[in-house]
Amino acid sequence: MGERVIIHEVGPRDGLQNEAVVLPTDQKAGLVARLQAAGCPQVEVSSFVRPRWVPQLADAEDLIRSLPMGDEVTWWALVPNRRGMERALESGISAVATFMSVSETHNEKNVNRTSKESLESLREVIATANAEGLQVRAYLSTVFGCPYEGDVDVRRAAALAGELLAAGAEHVSLGDTTGMADPSSVQRTVECMVASGIPLESLALHMHDTRGTALANVLTGLRLGVRRFDAAVAGLGGCPYAPGASGNLATEDLVHMLHAMGYSTGIDLDALADAGAFASQALGRALPGRYHRYHLARMQREERERSAC
Amino acid sequence: MGERVIIHEVGPRDGLQNEAVVLPTDQKAGLVARLQAAGCPQVEVSSFVRPRWVPQLADAEDLIRSLPMGDEVTWWALVPNRRGMERALESGISAVATFMSVSETHNEKNVNRTSKESLESLREVIATANAEGLQVRAYLSTVFGCPYEGDVDVRRAAALAGELLAAGAEHVSLGDTTGMADPSSVQRTVECMVASGIPLESLALHMHDTRGTALANVLTGLRLGVRRFDAAVAGLGGCPYAPGASGNLATEDLVHMLHAMGYSTGIDLDALADAGAFASQALGRALPGRYHRYHLARMQREERERSAC
Repeated sequence: MGERVIIHEVGPRDGLQNEAVVLPTDQKAGLVARLQAAGCPQVEVSSFVRPRWVPQLADAEDLIRSLPMGDEVTWWALVPNRRGMERALESGISAVATFMSVSETHNEKNVNRTSKESLESLREVIATANAEGLQVRAYLSTVFGCPYEGDVDVRRAAALAGELLAAGAEHVSLGDTTGMADPSSVQRTVECMVASGIPLESLALHMHDTRGTALANVLTGLRLGVRRFDAAVAGLGGCPYAPGASGNLATEDLVHMLHAMGYSTGIDLDALADAGAFASQALGRALPGRYHRYHLARMQREERERSAC
Repeated sequence: MGERVIIHEVGPRDGLQNEAVVLPTDQKAGLVARLQAAGCPQVEVSSFVRPRWVPQLADAEDLIRSLPMGDEVTWWALVPNRRGMERALESGISAVATFMSVSETHNEKNVNRTSKESLESLREVIATANAEGLQVRAYLSTVFGCPYEGDVDVRRAAALAGELLAAGAEHVSLGDTTGMADPSSVQRTVECMVASGIPLESLALHMHDTRGTALANVLTGLRLGVRRFDAAVAGLGGCPYAPGASGNLATEDLVHMLHAMGYSTGIDLDALADAGAFASQALGRALPGRYHRYHLARMQREERERSAC
């Protein structure tokens, strides 16, 4: 067994919230069950953002009610504010993710609040979650660049990450919201975080593949000691508020590379690719992950060979 | 100006030889002209493999006759054997690429010769090219794994690379024919080459993105000191003899990452992406490169915004 890397699967939430097709709850439950069967240890299943804003995830309570409970998977849901936190507590979910943006403009466009207002609200949300015994992660978006402001001050990102950890988040996920990061900026950012006193164990990287750099960026984080990465099965997802943004890093591509390099994830890669194939079929469209498409091509070839026998 | 990295563009050859649609010569010339306009310093335009085997490139002589001559671009063509070398000399091309496989099985399936026979033939071809004043590169395929044999002995790869350099090739391009490489195997391979006495300047990496690892593999090579990489505009290409293989690394993805990291390539990224858009339109299909698709989405949005004014 190689060194452990923790994969935080965001497909059912960050992926499906950006799909034009709204999946019925039983199809979402089918996807989530396949992710669990593949051994995914952390799965973000839905969001308590207002259904008016994200109609794709309006069935959060119903989906969460259908989840198999047990110790092997931690189920996460996104929580925007106090009202979302109340819904999360009522739903019985055991882990929540908050979010805010480093970029003032992006934060205001995304949640109609200043960064200061967001931070104050999240402090209260995180404190409530901790008091109720829930795990908490904090997403920090536009860490590697903002589609409105351009460059982002990495010291500001590190200061906000520090605030969110001090507020009680167990880790901060650094989001490359519109895929602007490259290996050099990832290195500068992670080194600045560490120099600001943030432990590597408190960091996750959430990379988007808009310009194809996601896995190279992960490799850089890995080399610097980061051991927690977000990804979406088959490359579902993106950011609806960011022009030009495409999907998340595909979980299969990430898991394949990590296993090839000798790391362990606890995930069965073939079973994970089957979950991606299920998502693709349910949505009725090809999904962008590379390993996923290789897996589908291989399965189709094997099927043809069996038919020919 | 950052440190220089040399990009060897293989789209017109390695890309088009694997497309179902055969482009007319004037369309190929249009693509090649756009690659030149984008500042690509090295472009592999066609192949002197028998037209019966690669009908997509049967017009090698006509295309090469149409190329603008000058100092800023080195035009390359693939040469399989003595007969191909004769055709190359008649065509007036100034640089040729030979090829053979590290894997005995892959070599036999690809060119119906043993490795020993291939090496002997290539020694003669390379000597002829040198005697005629042509530049020569040598492709070594299945360096990071073979779809028939599985693992490949890296010492055998290093020995063959050494033989090809000793025969007079100016550099050897290490091919990940079916996308089996990962950052760890790239590191092992490059380190073994260097330990075998092969200078870093004599190496190129030719990565396929079948499983999504191409850019992470390039990053590993870059960190170890490799400064020459092959790629195909918009991600055209693959290997027709290798089951499950998908396209080459997209040149735009590579150039974007290198520029973001401060390296110089001499290539204008927007103009390169326009060349990819031209290839996509000429072939009538979406191409897999990430940056290429981001570029197309951005252009379409800007077009809509102009129309709305």
